[in-house]
Amino acid sequence: MKTIPPERVSVIALRMLREALGESVETDRDQLYPVAYDGLKIAGSPEALIKIERSEDVSAVLKIANEYSIPVTCRGAGSSLTGGATPFQGGWVLDLSGLNSISIDQPNMLAICGPGAVVGELQEQADQLGLFYPPDPSSKKFSTLGGNVACNAGGLRCVKYGVTRDYVLSLSGYLPTGEFVKWGRATRKFATGYNLRDLWIGSEGTLGVITEITLRLILATESRITFLAAFEDDKSALGAPLALCKMGIRPSIIEYMDRWTIDCLQKYVEKEVFTGIAPRPMLLIELDGAPEVLKKEQEMVSAWLRNSSIDFRTALEESEAEELWEVRRQGSSAMKKLANTKLNEDIVIPLNRQVELVNFVNELREEFKLKIGVFGHCGDGNLHVNFMYNEEDPLETDTAVTALHRLMDKVISLDGAISGEHGVGLAKTPFVRNQFNDAEWNTMKAIKNTLDPKGILNPGKIFDVFKPWDQKKENVVLSWEHK
Amino acid sequence: MKTIPPERVSVIALRMLREALGESVETDRDQLYPVAYDGLKIAGSPEALIKIERSEDVSAVLKIANEYSIPVTCRGAGSSLTGGATPFQGGWVLDLSGLNSISIDQPNMLAICGPGAVVGELQEQADQLGLFYPPDPSSKKFSTLGGNVACNAGGLRCVKYGVTRDYVLSLSGYLPTGEFVKWGRATRKFATGYNLRDLWIGSEGTLGVITEITLRLILATESRITFLAAFEDDKSALGAPLALCKMGIRPSIIEYMDRWTIDCLQKYVEKEVFTGIAPRPMLLIELDGAPEVLKKEQEMVSAWLRNSSIDFRTALEESEAEELWEVRRQGSSAMKKLANTKLNEDIVIPLNRQVELVNFVNELREEFKLKIGVFGHCGDGNLHVNFMYNEEDPLETDTAVTALHRLMDKVISLDGAISGEHGVGLAKTPFVRNQFNDAEWNTMKAIKNTLDPKGILNPGKIFDVFKPWDQKKENVVLSWEHK
Repeated sequence: MKTIPPERVSVIALRMLREALGESVETDRDQLYPVAYDGLKIAGSPEALIKIERSEDVSAVLKIANEYSIPVTCRGAGSSLTGGATPFQGGWVLDLSGLNSISIDQPNMLAICGPGAVVGELQEQADQLGLFYPPDPSSKKFSTLGGNVACNAGGLRCVKYGVTRDYVLSLSGYLPTGEFVKWGRATRKFATGYNLRDLWIGSEGTLGVITEITLRLILATESRITFLAAFEDDKSALGAPLALCKMGIRPSIIEYMDRWTIDCLQKYVEKEVFTGIAPRPMLLIELDGAPEVLKKEQEMVSAWLRNSSIDFRTALEESEAEELWEVRRQGSSAMKKLANTKLNEDIVIPLNRQVELVNFVNELREEFKLKIGVFGHCGDGNLHVNFMYNEEDPLETDTAVTALHRLMDKVISLDGAISGEHGVGLAKTPFVRNQFNDAEWNTMKAIKNTLDPKGILNPGKIFDVFKPWDQKKENVVLSWEHK
Repeated sequence: MKTIPPERVSVIALRMLREALGESVETDRDQLYPVAYDGLKIAGSPEALIKIERSEDVSAVLKIANEYSIPVTCRGAGSSLTGGATPFQGGWVLDLSGLNSISIDQPNMLAICGPGAVVGELQEQADQLGLFYPPDPSSKKFSTLGGNVACNAGGLRCVKYGVTRDYVLSLSGYLPTGEFVKWGRATRKFATGYNLRDLWIGSEGTLGVITEITLRLILATESRITFLAAFEDDKSALGAPLALCKMGIRPSIIEYMDRWTIDCLQKYVEKEVFTGIAPRPMLLIELDGAPEVLKKEQEMVSAWLRNSSIDFRTALEESEAEELWEVRRQGSSAMKKLANTKLNEDIVIPLNRQVELVNFVNELREEFKLKIGVFGHCGDGNLHVNFMYNEEDPLETDTAVTALHRLMDKVISLDGAISGEHGVGLAKTPFVRNQFNDAEWNTMKAIKNTLDPKGILNPGKIFDVFKPWDQKKENVVLSWEHK
């Protein structure tokens, strides 16, 4: 039996880590601060940063960490919006951004990638070979595949193409003990033993450390058409997913913006989206596919929009489409002008309950006199509900938090989920318990205890209640937030 | 502490079961025999059969079974080819075929089904509403959705549309303790907590009992074209998946039959598939989609076949296509004429390793003087390798088993999996251990021990070595085997 006094454990562990990994271990305060927080901007106090250059080094780190029960938090770009990459319980940060290789196997339509590879770079490389990796979170220009797998990231095109999970064929990596494992194979079919691959996907770095991801790619889309339309009311706009489906059309994107988002946006850019009409709910619809089919579908969608919308525009060219997308992209920045703090909730509900949810948000807005904007992926029921408030104002904060709890209860009652694509991290821990009954919750905890008995991997995430609104936010600008 | 002598435990448990469930409990020998075996035809000795009429009754059964450590084996149609539904360690058989409801939610493109619903019936009902449930195991006319989920069933169209897992949105059911759980929601996106849904899928009834399955459906295909082609050699035939993909074509089906299968088939039906040519490797290719696109693709595939095949036929109509499919379907029956026992292995390997595998099978055939036919889903690397032998001949049996072990080692060395769609059950337990390293194997066992600590659910499956060739096969004809 070791009899090291607890206060010395981390010192000894750190010394062993240095012996094993030498210069890739940083303990300098200046180096540690930028990895102390992520997109949630709430900082932890890491004791060391380990820049991983070779997969095998992950094993060495974990063996020591597991022996001495040191928390280990994995990090790619650090763009998690939920605090998923925040080392909130201290310990070591495992920076996997250096494992950023992308190797595309064109004949087999596969990509073998490091967890640090940036999603957008994979998409660009695939595109050059006539291939396509569909998941496209808004963060795709900087977020990494490891993080995307860790929280089963989605994005805009999931309505037609599915989420990250739908493209992962196999995952290689390490258990908390430092033992190497590979879950799944580079084959679409697999019926041999338990599916740990899909248990790791979405487990937010709490069950293992991913060092290689094999993804399937699909054939690139031949052409695209984009529509921007304004509707009389939410019901007309949110009817689109079901109406188009009934016509036999499966759009690649259907994005919704409520009139509050549009209003905010118009004030921000000082320009009307559609001239002469008051701010209205809008949709951005993209169709993709073979030109022969697209032509027919374009006519059908146009006919439907003529009947159902107040006004609409069509973009056949990439550059025209880009203008329409700019409207959607500015939504988030515009909203930040309303108040200094945004609680961005990525709830998901069944398609036919969306109107009910948006009506409920309208009631909340009125009852609590809150600034709330709703936009997002209405093609798959994944709406982003943004609560804006000033965090220095305790009353405003309290009100926003009360309303947020009401929203989450409503989401669960509509048979939805509190997170569709961001994960639980720290930010959604106040709500996650209500998503599950006792048996479900205990099963998840039992799995965590079995696969990570010392609880070293990303501790505090998913299971422990953490209230982000009670915490000081770091006054930092992330590299991708620069204009 | 209870102090019941072990021999009396099952009697007491059975009495409690009768008290709880009354007439749905059968213990009559004649009633028990038909559920003592499944498609593997090796019989266990069940002590009771419980015909489940209401989901809640599953909870009552499991509570008693778990208290008294009684094995519980779930059963749908009993069509498992691996012994997955065989109550080999005795105990109780839970017949879920009565939970066969199918409820299609057309606007949301969902199906909510009982585990006892037959796959083909769901497909027919969906088709009438212009919707499509793609997974199509050859057993679809009788196999149930519960079984399909339990072993993550595949089929022919997976090459384009994916496997059962790709369509399951949520699963409801019971833990071994009898506690109700629901994993996932009727939404495509879900990033809230651990994904137990996909852990249950493919776990062959060893982790929980499924009582409701929510599936997503897609829009029905507009039209189809089928090609049957004979090739000079395996290399030319097996090059099709990559060649077509390179042309930007994604067929809905690519089925391969080696020349041994064709030879066997031609002798069986006393007719040549293509007149005047010796038995050659053949492909059945199906394209589906919008007519405008299909027309273009038909020309491309025809041009490719003119260059690459010896001879080919095209079927534009359903009835013509049916004739071509009949060729493929008789493969299995024809093969049964070669010997009385068939070991049907549904291995899966990366697309570009298929020629290597088929060459290896050719070497085995020669070295061991064995009758082996290979056919199957070469579009996704899921080849069915059929070893034919007479089980009364110990030498022939030994030879087949030795060759089979060699095949499985080869599959694993090619980075494939020993089962692509049938599951491990009993039949593949002699090979499954080699698929995993110690860490992977121990992780899977740890999950089993955590989620089913008393080991009551489908005991003996996946983890314990069982040699089907050492067992007596029941001389029975299953209902779907009748001509």
